[in-house]
Amino acid sequence: MLPFARVTVIGLGLIGSSITRAVRQYMPSVRITGHDADPQVRETAVRLQLCDDVADTPGAAVIDADLVILCVPVGAMGQVAGEIADDLPADAVLSDVGSSKETVLAAVREAAPHALFVPAHPVAGTENSGPEAGFATLFQHRWCIVTAPEGTDPLAAERVCEFWRRLGAMVETMEPAHHDRVLAVTSHLPHLIAYTIVGTASDLEEVTASEVIKYSAGGFRDFTRIAASDPTMWRDVFLSNREAVLDMLQRFTEDLTSLQRAIRWGKGDELFDLFTRTRAVRRSIIDQGQDDARPDFGRAHD
Amino acid sequence: MLPFARVTVIGLGLIGSSITRAVRQYMPSVRITGHDADPQVRETAVRLQLCDDVADTPGAAVIDADLVILCVPVGAMGQVAGEIADDLPADAVLSDVGSSKETVLAAVREAAPHALFVPAHPVAGTENSGPEAGFATLFQHRWCIVTAPEGTDPLAAERVCEFWRRLGAMVETMEPAHHDRVLAVTSHLPHLIAYTIVGTASDLEEVTASEVIKYSAGGFRDFTRIAASDPTMWRDVFLSNREAVLDMLQRFTEDLTSLQRAIRWGKGDELFDLFTRTRAVRRSIIDQGQDDARPDFGRAHD
Repeated sequence: MLPFARVTVIGLGLIGSSITRAVRQYMPSVRITGHDADPQVRETAVRLQLCDDVADTPGAAVIDADLVILCVPVGAMGQVAGEIADDLPADAVLSDVGSSKETVLAAVREAAPHALFVPAHPVAGTENSGPEAGFATLFQHRWCIVTAPEGTDPLAAERVCEFWRRLGAMVETMEPAHHDRVLAVTSHLPHLIAYTIVGTASDLEEVTASEVIKYSAGGFRDFTRIAASDPTMWRDVFLSNREAVLDMLQRFTEDLTSLQRAIRWGKGDELFDLFTRTRAVRRSIIDQGQDDARPDFGRAHD
Repeated sequence: MLPFARVTVIGLGLIGSSITRAVRQYMPSVRITGHDADPQVRETAVRLQLCDDVADTPGAAVIDADLVILCVPVGAMGQVAGEIADDLPADAVLSDVGSSKETVLAAVREAAPHALFVPAHPVAGTENSGPEAGFATLFQHRWCIVTAPEGTDPLAAERVCEFWRRLGAMVETMEPAHHDRVLAVTSHLPHLIAYTIVGTASDLEEVTASEVIKYSAGGFRDFTRIAASDPTMWRDVFLSNREAVLDMLQRFTEDLTSLQRAIRWGKGDELFDLFTRTRAVRRSIIDQGQDDARPDFGRAHD
């Protein structure tokens, strides 16, 4: 039994278009409708046959759906929920893929108070954006966190969980507030730091941009991948998960200051101890299948 | 004409063993001698046939060489140079692969004042360490920076440049002090930040280590690769390139504080502008062949 028969995806970027492709591949009998606010993206979606139907308005896209997934930047979730509220069938499940959950939950509840909202967050992506960047296997072996608030119909929550399992994801449930703390450290802080260091490196007087690029294989290039992520999406994430991000940033800054002091005072043992400890974390990530086991992420060396 | 006929590599870890493998592959007529202070590494080198000869002492390893490359942590360069000084043939060229150049230059000059020293730094590597981690194509399309000090015999410098070109590298020459500034930003600061954030994430009370690992695909896992690099090597790098690292760290911290303020005060435009600017750096790195053009570094998604 498929969890849903008629799925609508609003927002056909990297994640939205990966969902439509994955539904095509793993649940081929499901009817897929899509919408994007950008007419060019809608055209691309038609050309790439990402959906069975591409609707011109969000309302028209949801009118017959049993699952609607909002795949727009978290700052736009409330607005889009408001645009579909009147056309959403009463028994349809509404979900999203946002990287922050408390503010999205509040915004959607206010804009569409009668919707059966089951928030979800597939922890997967690449640095690329737009409908052409998606692919069907993006969610395979990745975690999807479902953050159904208290009082959610358990059957609706379970159907959303099953939907993500069908796309290849492993599913975990969590309180929205806890999700926001966890993702602040595993995703938001790393992005913030990557954006910062790429900015810092671009603004030096005595080291040229060309030198930064030429010698980026020393480590810097790893950060540029993350710092190439979608600017609108990430602006919204930092603003919407502000408190948790600022708290994690504070901890990071304290730790960095302590390391700075160890360097200044030549405390090699402190450095060595930390560098030994961090090595074990990498091993666990590979053991648990959350990264490529090949050296250098499996980058081509030839 | 090959630049050298008898190459000795001291230190058979990731870089040293990649050099011996690359020499085998690209200059098969060159005789390769190796030495490592660790008897187990010497055994592995024999078993893997990394060299034509594995010598038991550094002195015995260099006695017949026309090129000797020190591939030990930068904090050990001076000591090893002292150990070989008496046995080094007068016309042999001495080089190294260290990630910092001013302190290494000073240490080697003091320990082996008569050696014809041409420092070099191949900007390449993976997160793995040890003689089994090396591979022959590690230096292909990567830059090698030769930092011959004023007064170096131009022919000796050119022979070292040619050696690296034969291993597939592109060669650039630079003043040692400038090298240390450039690498502080393209390599040392990124490593320092990666080590820090992995440490920060491991020390949280309310987010478990298991959660950090499970949801690491949100960005964090990229940092764990770098933070799995060799602890001894990196302790030495930070201590030996202290001034440049501390200066770059200061700039980074200022920029991070400014971003922190933008998040606190909801200045979305500032975030968006930076995130748009950093995107261009990634494109340049890919255009110039310094990273894999495939999304997500070409990581497996299946």
